[in-house]
Amino acid sequence: MATGFGFELKATDGKARTGVISTPRGDIRTPAFMPVGTAATVKAMLPESVRETGADILLGNTYHLMLRPTAERIDRLGGLHKFMNWERPILTDSGGFQVMSLAGLRKLTEKGVTFKSHVDGSKHEITPERSMEIQRLLGSDIVMCFDECTPFPATEEQALESMRLSMRWAQRSRDAFGDRPGHALFGIQQGSTFRDQREESAEALQKIGFDGYAVGGLAVGEGQEMMFDVLDYAPDMLPVDKPRYLMGVGKPDDIVGAVKRGIDMMDCVLPSRSGRTGQVFTRRGVLNIKNARHQDDPRPLDEDCTCPACRNYSRAYLHHTFRAKEIIQSMLLTWHNLHYYQDLMQGMCDAIAAGTFAEWEADFHAKRAEGDIEPL
Amino acid sequence: MATGFGFELKATDGKARTGVISTPRGDIRTPAFMPVGTAATVKAMLPESVRETGADILLGNTYHLMLRPTAERIDRLGGLHKFMNWERPILTDSGGFQVMSLAGLRKLTEKGVTFKSHVDGSKHEITPERSMEIQRLLGSDIVMCFDECTPFPATEEQALESMRLSMRWAQRSRDAFGDRPGHALFGIQQGSTFRDQREESAEALQKIGFDGYAVGGLAVGEGQEMMFDVLDYAPDMLPVDKPRYLMGVGKPDDIVGAVKRGIDMMDCVLPSRSGRTGQVFTRRGVLNIKNARHQDDPRPLDEDCTCPACRNYSRAYLHHTFRAKEIIQSMLLTWHNLHYYQDLMQGMCDAIAAGTFAEWEADFHAKRAEGDIEPL
Repeated sequence: MATGFGFELKATDGKARTGVISTPRGDIRTPAFMPVGTAATVKAMLPESVRETGADILLGNTYHLMLRPTAERIDRLGGLHKFMNWERPILTDSGGFQVMSLAGLRKLTEKGVTFKSHVDGSKHEITPERSMEIQRLLGSDIVMCFDECTPFPATEEQALESMRLSMRWAQRSRDAFGDRPGHALFGIQQGSTFRDQREESAEALQKIGFDGYAVGGLAVGEGQEMMFDVLDYAPDMLPVDKPRYLMGVGKPDDIVGAVKRGIDMMDCVLPSRSGRTGQVFTRRGVLNIKNARHQDDPRPLDEDCTCPACRNYSRAYLHHTFRAKEIIQSMLLTWHNLHYYQDLMQGMCDAIAAGTFAEWEADFHAKRAEGDIEPL
Repeated sequence: MATGFGFELKATDGKARTGVISTPRGDIRTPAFMPVGTAATVKAMLPESVRETGADILLGNTYHLMLRPTAERIDRLGGLHKFMNWERPILTDSGGFQVMSLAGLRKLTEKGVTFKSHVDGSKHEITPERSMEIQRLLGSDIVMCFDECTPFPATEEQALESMRLSMRWAQRSRDAFGDRPGHALFGIQQGSTFRDQREESAEALQKIGFDGYAVGGLAVGEGQEMMFDVLDYAPDMLPVDKPRYLMGVGKPDDIVGAVKRGIDMMDCVLPSRSGRTGQVFTRRGVLNIKNARHQDDPRPLDEDCTCPACRNYSRAYLHHTFRAKEIIQSMLLTWHNLHYYQDLMQGMCDAIAAGTFAEWEADFHAKRAEGDIEPL
């Protein structure tokens, strides 16, 4: 496994875990939420502001960056950290998920995937080997295996075929990654909603050996209940002493439910994307800032939040700037949402360390139930 | 005149002046450039970042704010300063200029102007009295008289009629403003490009008596040469011991030429608007960040600039984020442009105080001439 990269479990409470991932670029407290910086920027945020929210690590998207400005250009300019002014750890996805989403525009073979760029229509190919190369050029600290994210729903046969392809690609990813001190490679468990396939996948990955393990193929339309059903057993199949990453999750209650089931890392565009569309996450539910009821409201979004949007601005101001389509609205609501997500993670870290996760979770749900959740 | 509001001239060099305007909300070093915060935000900037660029005062637009969120709402919420989180001085225009620009949608009479809102088509009226009321509700520190900005070109007769209407409105503005300690009222000289009319207007305003005087009716299409011709004499007609404000100016060389001719205050959307369209002002000319020649350039926009865009990012990054239509590009380029403008003002303050304005100006022009000015 990678030297200079480690994971220390500090405490558990039920299945919930808290710990620290150590990397040469800094520590990552877990459970960790990773803001998404798709095109070398967390949209509407300066990186120093992302750090102020409490984020220890960002996620970058291989698919977007390979097309524009290209991995080779980022490498020439000194790597993604320097390019985007974020010196702390970066995890990159493999490009697989976004490429698979290009229905009709991509072709899958044993070798890899060919597709057309959404930017300029040019033809590209990603294989496990090419994905490892791109992520190396970007300078990623945590590299993800190239896999096929099994679509949902899938028949048992489709899921099995897809999972076994991903396991062959996992081996090729491992071989291509080689030995890169200070850089970690994570495997990705597949198997859809089929327990025996999840088991087979977990065993195959551990036979290859990775620095961390992701639970893949979830948050793809199966719904929270079915996702939690899989999370009731899938993380337990993965090594206790390695970080477990649930990709693309999620809403606050998804995140809490995942941590409760033993997940250590998550990422999602939801807090940043919602910030640009006026959806605000608070301790007491979800606000839609565009609603007219906010136009004369002098209160902050969330009385208990210490982010700049809540410290310095009224709901009335945020409503006004949303209606006037002012950029500051995206800046402030994104900041708030990311701050809320990091507060959520810190709350769970503390509760797990104190052995009070059940009480913390009950309080989390109670506050939301009494709050002012607005339909969008 | 207003108590709690003052202007102290510290030094002159030729006609160029440096001094300090004092207000209860803080001092304004002159010559001063006022960033424009049209709809209660300097677009793409947090107010604390605007302050970091060196701005002592912002400009707010009465026309936009009266329509959305309305002056009455801002008053209920505690005033514009609190609403937009800017505790330092704010100057508001009278609404006249924007209303006059609504060709075909507005009607001018002796009483004032009626017009339809660009937001929702509703009917509105601004008179000198209503303009004073709106600016009072906003809590503006420096209030501008309601005037007609004489269109360019105008015949001598048209200009005279327009100027005399503005002078009658100046008296009505003065009467309606009343006595508001700590708040200043500025008169606006009109008279187009006719020297005798500028003289008549300056005398009429001084008879009424104001805390400061604007040179109006310029930067409306007459070009730099004709603007400088008027500025060669118009500021001299105004009191030496009051601030002189040139509205809506301008490009860096417009600003330097205006200060050279005795102007103390200016405002313009150019640095912020240009930031959103990729136009970058530097000591060595103007860059257009969207040009492909920047895509591999590791250099900052301006080697001598200390703004965050120049300290932390390459031209290549700013080019990439512009092409990818990322909000951070607007944030960083606006910050840079406003920082550049404030550096420009500080450079002139220092040079005037040192009696070296002529050398400073020669250096300003020489650096630009040797630079890489790009056509847009």
